[in-house]
This record gives sequence, structure tokens and C-alpha cells, in this order.
Amino acid sequence: MTTTTHASTVNGVSIRVLSETISAVDKDRELGLSRFKISNTWDGGTRSTSTVEDMYAAKQTIAHKAGHQMHSDEPEMLSGTDAAPNPVEQLLSALASCVVTSIIAHASMKGIEINSLKSELEGDINLTGFLGLDDSISRGYNNISIKLFVDSPHKDLEEIRLLSFYSPVFNTIANAAKLDVSITN
Amino acid sequence: MTTTTHASTVNGVSIRVLSETISAVDKDRELGLSRFKISNTWDGGTRSTSTVEDMYAAKQTIAHKAGHQMHSDEPEMLSGTDAAPNPVEQLLSALASCVVTSIIAHASMKGIEINSLKSELEGDINLTGFLGLDDSISRGYNNISIKLFVDSPHKDLEEIRLLSFYSPVFNTIANAAKLDVSITN
Repeated sequence: MTTTTHASTVNGVSIRVLSETISAVDKDRELGLSRFKISNTWDGGTRSTSTVEDMYAAKQTIAHKAGHQMHSDEPEMLSGTDAAPNPVEQLLSALASCVVTSIIAHASMKGIEINSLKSELEGDINLTGFLGLDDSISRGYNNISIKLFVDSPHKDLEEIRLLSFYSPVFNTIANAAKLDVSITN
Repeated sequence: MTTTTHASTVNGVSIRVLSETISAVDKDRELGLSRFKISNTWDGGTRSTSTVEDMYAAKQTIAHKAGHQMHSDEPEMLSGTDAAPNPVEQLLSALASCVVTSIIAHASMKGIEINSLKSELEGDINLTGFLGLDDSISRGYNNISIKLFVDSPHKDLEEIRLLSFYSPVFNTIANAAKLDVSITN
């Protein structure tokens, strides 16, 4: 009747918590419906601050422990003061952290140990589009490259790579989302 | 031959810098080609840290003044320690800050003064997809709502709303991007 301690946590993720979540959502799919929300305030010039608001998950409103904030600015070349990452860098960070978290969570459930996981992401943006000089030029990223560097005793790296496809941010960007913009004063 | 000081800066954005950028890119479109890059390190469990790397723009490599970092974690319900925003919240922040910056930059070039600009963004994610319980369920956001609250002497709010469509992050998510994932040890 002993339990091995190394089985309860894999890669720093509690297998008990994750298993219970999966089991609960599997029995009652409504538990899986979640909503995330932020507010943003323009700070003048190219600067703004986002504040994470309460989230909704498992049929309840959940407050974050701390008032998480994210700051944004542009480099001087783009008329900013370079006080924080710019929005397109923040997008790459969201993608990186989501891919990493998704790989770790699913690897943990499979018992795949990861010693270290680093990544490099980059993408090209043609400012001709953003500046309004040519409407035929895409205003966003067309391609984003994600290079994963993993240290793991698990030799099937392709199996680990494929776990990135569980990532919600990955799927949002790969499949697009409908964006509704309203304005009021 | 006098220049009015209020015309040189609108909404805290230097019109001179922005005008020179637009003019230069218009004459030499290669100046508009830019590349953004971040690296990410897994910090154990659901935590990771992104570091903004040098960017490329105007035919040169540009170092950020400071080593900007962005931290990510998950709330306790999702097996994390809630030490930072989670990746899907970071995505909303990237979208908010990009929409705001795009509105401000283009409003400034049009001489539209903005006194304040706040926004609220939210989106739903069905964790049934992320958890791998149902492959027919989308794993990302399908819809994101962006509510803008603006204080401006400019009465045509629709004109201001439409400026959000210049945003690179908005266009990346609305139109999708191709994501290439490689892995090595």
C-alpha cells in the first residue's frame, strides 16, 4: 500500500491534480468551459498596461492570487521608449509559454521526464502593411518559427514535438479566431 | 518658418519620427522588413520565462535597451502556482496592446487626439480540447471579444474603431499564421 513519491509529480506537475481534472471534465464536459479576460489601459504614446482579470473555469469564477500585469512599449525606432516588450514580441512569448506548458503537461501524463526545455521563436513582419502603404501586404506574421531544444531521457523526440499541437495559443494562431471589436465612449 | 509644438507630438507619439519612418519605407520598401525574436526557458512545472532578443528592422539589428522578460504560469486549478499570467491571458494582452498602439499611431498621423483609451478582452476556451478528451473540440480561442472605451474630441468613433485593423497581432490571429515546429536535443 505504499505510493512512490516520484509518481505523484512528474516535471514539477502534480499528476494527481491533472488526473483529477481530466477525469472530472471527462465525466462533466461543462467543467471544461473556461473564460479568460484582461483589461488594458493606454499609458500614453506607445505604452499600455494589461491587467489580468478573474477567470472562469469549472463552473466558478476564480481570482488570481496576485494582480498580474503586463507592460508593452515599442523600441525608439518605432516611436516608443523601449520600456517593455512590444506587442508582437508578447505574442511570441504567449506562443512559446503555451507550447512549453502543453508539452510539459502532456509529457507528465505520459510519464515522459523532461530535464530541460528551451525554445527560440521568430517571425517576420513587413511594416509596409502596418504603416498603410500597401494594402496587399499582410499586416501580421505570415510564418512563425518555433525551435525546441529538449533534454530528456525519452528518445522519441517526434512524440514530444507533437505534444505542442495541444497548445491553445498554437491552435488559435494556426487556425485563426474571429475577433469582434466594439467601441464606445 | 515657425513650427507649432503641439503638432510635433500627438497622443505622446512623435509625428516627426513616424512621418520619417513612413516616408523612408515608402521610398525603400526593404526598410519595412522586420524580424522579431524571443527565447523561452522552462522554469519547472507550468512556469516559463521569455526573453526578448535583438530585433531586425530598417536593414539593421537593433538591441533593446533592457533585457525585457515575460513570465508565465498557470493558476492552481490548472496545476500551477499562479505566479504570473498564463499563456492565453498573455495572448489577450498582446492583442490588446497591439490594437491600442495601432489605433494611437494611426490616430496621431490623422491628427485625431485621444484623451484615454481602455479596453476589455475576453475569450472562451474549452479545456476538453486541450486535455485531449475530444479531438473534435477546438483547442484554442474560437472568438475573442475586444471592447474599446475611448475618450476623444473626435466624434466619429467608427473611424477610430477601424484603426484597430492595422494591428499586426490582430491580423495574425484573424488571418492565421503558419507555425513551424522543430525539435532537437
